[in-house]
Amino acid sequence: MPFWKLTIAYDGTEFSGWQAQPERRTVQGVVKAAWREITGENPRLSASSRTDAGVHAVGQVLGVETQSRLGAEKLFSGINAKLPDDVVLVAVDEAPVGFHATRDAVGKHYRYQIHNQRSRPLLDRRQVWHVTQPLDAAAMHRSGQAMVGEHDFASFQSAGSERETTIRTISLVDIQWSKDQPSACLWIDVQGDGFLYNMVRIIVGTLVEVGLGKRAESWPAEVIAARDRSAAGRTAPPHGLMLLRVEY
Amino acid sequence: MPFWKLTIAYDGTEFSGWQAQPERRTVQGVVKAAWREITGENPRLSASSRTDAGVHAVGQVLGVETQSRLGAEKLFSGINAKLPDDVVLVAVDEAPVGFHATRDAVGKHYRYQIHNQRSRPLLDRRQVWHVTQPLDAAAMHRSGQAMVGEHDFASFQSAGSERETTIRTISLVDIQWSKDQPSACLWIDVQGDGFLYNMVRIIVGTLVEVGLGKRAESWPAEVIAARDRSAAGRTAPPHGLMLLRVEY
Repeated sequence: MPFWKLTIAYDGTEFSGWQAQPERRTVQGVVKAAWREITGENPRLSASSRTDAGVHAVGQVLGVETQSRLGAEKLFSGINAKLPDDVVLVAVDEAPVGFHATRDAVGKHYRYQIHNQRSRPLLDRRQVWHVTQPLDAAAMHRSGQAMVGEHDFASFQSAGSERETTIRTISLVDIQWSKDQPSACLWIDVQGDGFLYNMVRIIVGTLVEVGLGKRAESWPAEVIAARDRSAAGRTAPPHGLMLLRVEY
Repeated sequence: MPFWKLTIAYDGTEFSGWQAQPERRTVQGVVKAAWREITGENPRLSASSRTDAGVHAVGQVLGVETQSRLGAEKLFSGINAKLPDDVVLVAVDEAPVGFHATRDAVGKHYRYQIHNQRSRPLLDRRQVWHVTQPLDAAAMHRSGQAMVGEHDFASFQSAGSERETTIRTISLVDIQWSKDQPSACLWIDVQGDGFLYNMVRIIVGTLVEVGLGKRAESWPAEVIAARDRSAAGRTAPPHGLMLLRVEY
């Protein structure tokens, strides 16, 4: 009874998020269907992150327990051949007995992309948030350092989540222009041991207030201290967000 | 009676190319409609390049002669507001009297993108050709230098074009991995004073034969000398091609 770790990438545009739902096109739904076609099994899939509708992934990790005797190579090519063109199976690796992609994750790395220019984005328009007023990236980076460390992130959680604790540890907040020259794309990278519901998108919405000069650089630290969702900025739109990598 | 130079960008995926055609969605068609909504005029538009269905542009240049007294800023914001999300008006500049985007162009820069990895491309899947076998980029670059200079490119022209001469001057053929790290994306940049029908795509199809090791590095020079379309490689698919820039 082998356990597998699947690494997948997807364009979230045409999905109602990760989690399977009746009558909706979901990432879990299409991966399950592909697995079933190849192995004949109806699998249980765990995911490192239940990404919302519109959110993308480069390195989402899934856990699956199977009776199938198919090897990694057969699973890789077979499942890829059955997936639609907006989901790619990137890697199939053997996992330890009992592997569970949600429980066993110890770190996640997200990137949020902002197209910061008056002109509309084009080829990447489904992967960026368009902010037309100029952003001060250095101010956003400095004020974002208040997030780093162990904090109660209750201010950065949307209603509707039921986590036992709102304490999380953030190891990196890094804000820089993308490497394209000239660059109109701002990258907001956030790494941590785990995230509350909409946490990255609320962090981004909060830092953008600083970047626009509407709030002082000291404000994000006050938002953390408030432990109240209404103290923070808006929730940035989902399509700018991408799950880059998960650590185990 | 001012003349304007419009610089536009588009995602060619959902267009039947540049040239207006009845019952088809074309770039010329949507730009004309936007212009008409803003100025009330039915404009004549010249374009530097009549890109084919599926081909993209970052810096396509259009020429238009108008009776409208609207200034550059009004045209810019008004037309952009009327364009669909897969066409962006990048710049509006005054042009000299009699400006014609096709006739007056003195140089064009195209880029062709190849996703060279076993895994399928994802977020950029509509802008890259997927070649699964490994390509030798250095061999392609070396053999591509045979194209540089003034040559008769009759071997690199699809049937159906009616140009007076098949002699063109290529100033640059540059093949390199994109700047992403790690990169699976090969950039084939070609600059010249003008191009025959499908010329860049046939150059790419020919150089890929060298990159795959199916042909010697000396072969592209022989293809030029043959002056016969059947001597060259296949026509690479349209969606990997992008018009980057036009010089006047």
